[in-house]
Amino acid sequence: MTAFNQTGIIGSFKGFSRRDFVKYLFAGSALSLSALKKLNASIYQSITSLNQKYIEDESPDGVYWEALSKHFLFKDGLIMMNNGTVGPMPKPVFNSLMRYFRVQVTNPFDVYNFIPRKKGEVRAKLAQFINASPDEVVITRNTTEGMNFVANGLDMKEGDEVLLSTMEHPGGTHPWRLKEKRYGITIKMVPIGLPPKGVDEIVSAFQKAISPRTKIISISHTVYISGLIAPLKELSQIAHEKGVLVLADSAHGIGMLNLDMKELGIDFFATSPYKWLGAPTGVGLLYVRKEVQDKLWPTIASSGWDTSANARKFETLGQRADALTLALGEALDFQNAIGKERIERRIKTLAGYLKRELGKIPGIRLHTSQDPYISGGLTAFSVEGVEPKKIVNYMREKYNIVVRTIGNKEKGTYGVRVSTHIYVFLKHVDMFLEGMRHLVRRKK
Amino acid sequence: MTAFNQTGIIGSFKGFSRRDFVKYLFAGSALSLSALKKLNASIYQSITSLNQKYIEDESPDGVYWEALSKHFLFKDGLIMMNNGTVGPMPKPVFNSLMRYFRVQVTNPFDVYNFIPRKKGEVRAKLAQFINASPDEVVITRNTTEGMNFVANGLDMKEGDEVLLSTMEHPGGTHPWRLKEKRYGITIKMVPIGLPPKGVDEIVSAFQKAISPRTKIISISHTVYISGLIAPLKELSQIAHEKGVLVLADSAHGIGMLNLDMKELGIDFFATSPYKWLGAPTGVGLLYVRKEVQDKLWPTIASSGWDTSANARKFETLGQRADALTLALGEALDFQNAIGKERIERRIKTLAGYLKRELGKIPGIRLHTSQDPYISGGLTAFSVEGVEPKKIVNYMREKYNIVVRTIGNKEKGTYGVRVSTHIYVFLKHVDMFLEGMRHLVRRKK
Repeated sequence: MTAFNQTGIIGSFKGFSRRDFVKYLFAGSALSLSALKKLNASIYQSITSLNQKYIEDESPDGVYWEALSKHFLFKDGLIMMNNGTVGPMPKPVFNSLMRYFRVQVTNPFDVYNFIPRKKGEVRAKLAQFINASPDEVVITRNTTEGMNFVANGLDMKEGDEVLLSTMEHPGGTHPWRLKEKRYGITIKMVPIGLPPKGVDEIVSAFQKAISPRTKIISISHTVYISGLIAPLKELSQIAHEKGVLVLADSAHGIGMLNLDMKELGIDFFATSPYKWLGAPTGVGLLYVRKEVQDKLWPTIASSGWDTSANARKFETLGQRADALTLALGEALDFQNAIGKERIERRIKTLAGYLKRELGKIPGIRLHTSQDPYISGGLTAFSVEGVEPKKIVNYMREKYNIVVRTIGNKEKGTYGVRVSTHIYVFLKHVDMFLEGMRHLVRRKK
Repeated sequence: MTAFNQTGIIGSFKGFSRRDFVKYLFAGSALSLSALKKLNASIYQSITSLNQKYIEDESPDGVYWEALSKHFLFKDGLIMMNNGTVGPMPKPVFNSLMRYFRVQVTNPFDVYNFIPRKKGEVRAKLAQFINASPDEVVITRNTTEGMNFVANGLDMKEGDEVLLSTMEHPGGTHPWRLKEKRYGITIKMVPIGLPPKGVDEIVSAFQKAISPRTKIISISHTVYISGLIAPLKELSQIAHEKGVLVLADSAHGIGMLNLDMKELGIDFFATSPYKWLGAPTGVGLLYVRKEVQDKLWPTIASSGWDTSANARKFETLGQRADALTLALGEALDFQNAIGKERIERRIKTLAGYLKRELGKIPGIRLHTSQDPYISGGLTAFSVEGVEPKKIVNYMREKYNIVVRTIGNKEKGTYGVRVSTHIYVFLKHVDMFLEGMRHLVRRKK
């Protein structure tokens, strides 16, 4: 807060202290819709003012990021370095979520007066956010649902192949295991290093694995276990040359990376906006490229599945929790106010610093590449002789830092995973590093 | 409120006025979990006191129901006679929903400390509520999802038959239309009257339609278009005699009827607790009878789909909005405090009165049976020469009563649908009847 006073921007944050937020929370539940809009708009306006003021000054722990972090409300000074599991909603998102759920308390039927229009707006925002068309956007519950929609929806005969990497999440593996068991398709696993040496290692491994029976590559974009960012653009190129489709499990992608579907050239892209984008749990996104929509059957069918000429045919579920979708729209507004290039840059700056310094500590093995082209906000590592669980507990007890264990002993992936989102400061990374140096020293 | 003072029970409702509820709302968002429990418990305690006091006095517009209705918060005196579309959450449910979503604001990772246990409790409560085992309960998003899970999950060959009634909802029809188009199964439609004369008419129509290729009857239990309650017990009996499975689309069942899965003998039962049970939108229930679980493939697969020995294998979705599930548990607590027999009796009393009096107005044609065994809280009707849309608008403008149009002109089902839940009083039904008499008189 001292920094605020020194730089004179406290004025633009008046009303956003922790205590005042309690008022906002309360307001959120009883607020008129126009008052909600005004309240959230004032938050975005304050961010815009910050952007203008600090455009030249993005030093990692500058005033800018500290000021932004006031829009998050961690309990008891918690330092959240595990949003890779579930991330926090910033204030405007929670405000909206409560407000829209409240409609079901006061007049459930009123919902139909504004929800369809508002959902259309969210779809358009989502499309713009990932450089796609609104006709390519499917609103799901999470990445796993998106992966299942694609595995279920493709017609594949016995013996037709899907290529998976050896680093897939259960949500990206089991949809294919089910199809294998029920319909006799074949799964081929393609090895990826921990970490891989570079783009070529990954691309050539998949290139070699493609056979005439290969129908699709289903690959983790943001590898939960290692922090790898898979080179989707290059994989899509080599796959499409051979008529093979590409599906990405990008659970961590949205809100962490500045995504561009056209640039990636991918066919299907499933992501979970409640990890890095600030949306509530319960809402996800599946992108289905216009040109391949005819190849995919809907998994859940109600009115419209056979008549919609766009990706809406994959979400004809009937009644659902629309408040979640509208809150997702608010999460997009929040990140847009900051700017997604700026967010990716900040996340990679923090992760880059963490990896560089971890790399200097003897005995620490990085599972994540130092190359920012194939890494992002997830950093995983292990330490010879120090149990990952011990690191997690120590960081929580000593620094109030939340990180998590990840991976599997037998597969050699067991370690600690750290998420470095925009509400993490360099000083928190330094605390984490101090803790690691201590643990490494002590084991001797 | 006068009634309260006269009967001296205002004490037990202290703190539950509309103004005070605003305080509770606010509390709900910042409240500790134990304080939330205490707050909601005080509401249930007040209901229990009412139960004890008024056990002998269930006259339709007695103090009992007026007192209970204070736990709902309709806007501007709205009279909600369309919860058949989406129903309201009572206070404790909204309190819980906000509180549990708030965990994602203050420490998303904390969720894992209590959610799994709490979800287990909800599953057990759900099972008890419908007289099933927790191992037969699948938590879905809505009825349509449940219907799709069954249609997707059954292995059926080309030419295998499903029997549907002519009164199905799109959410009960399209899952089979998709399977017909993708896998070549056959759909046979079985006619049902508007209204049917009785149980025998329905049962014998299905009995006649069953062929050696019939694998399953998929039938609406609570017909959205006509208010019919299909005789599931009798249908299950004749179906099972011929080795045919039975799936019920009971979108309106839970919270309206005192359900008993063992009594009904059904194989699959899909329902939407946000219509009559008071749950938030976004959460549903699919019952899958233990003995038929092996016949059904999961539709959405992640860890556990191939290892769970119970119905949990149908809900291995990964991360979701657990707050919705926990709020569903609260909705069960709320109805349990009142008693589900009492609720069904009240709903049928109101609907019975409405139908009897509507039947006396010349020109009105009831689409719903007067027999309480094959009808419930949904009443549908049409009036020669009066547009349903006109009735809906008139009731809203004149009385602030929300009802809806329903059905289809070509099919002869077009009319008005009225839902009579426990927050509707006899005097509201009288207002509606007065309005109908006026509209019928005026058309001449």
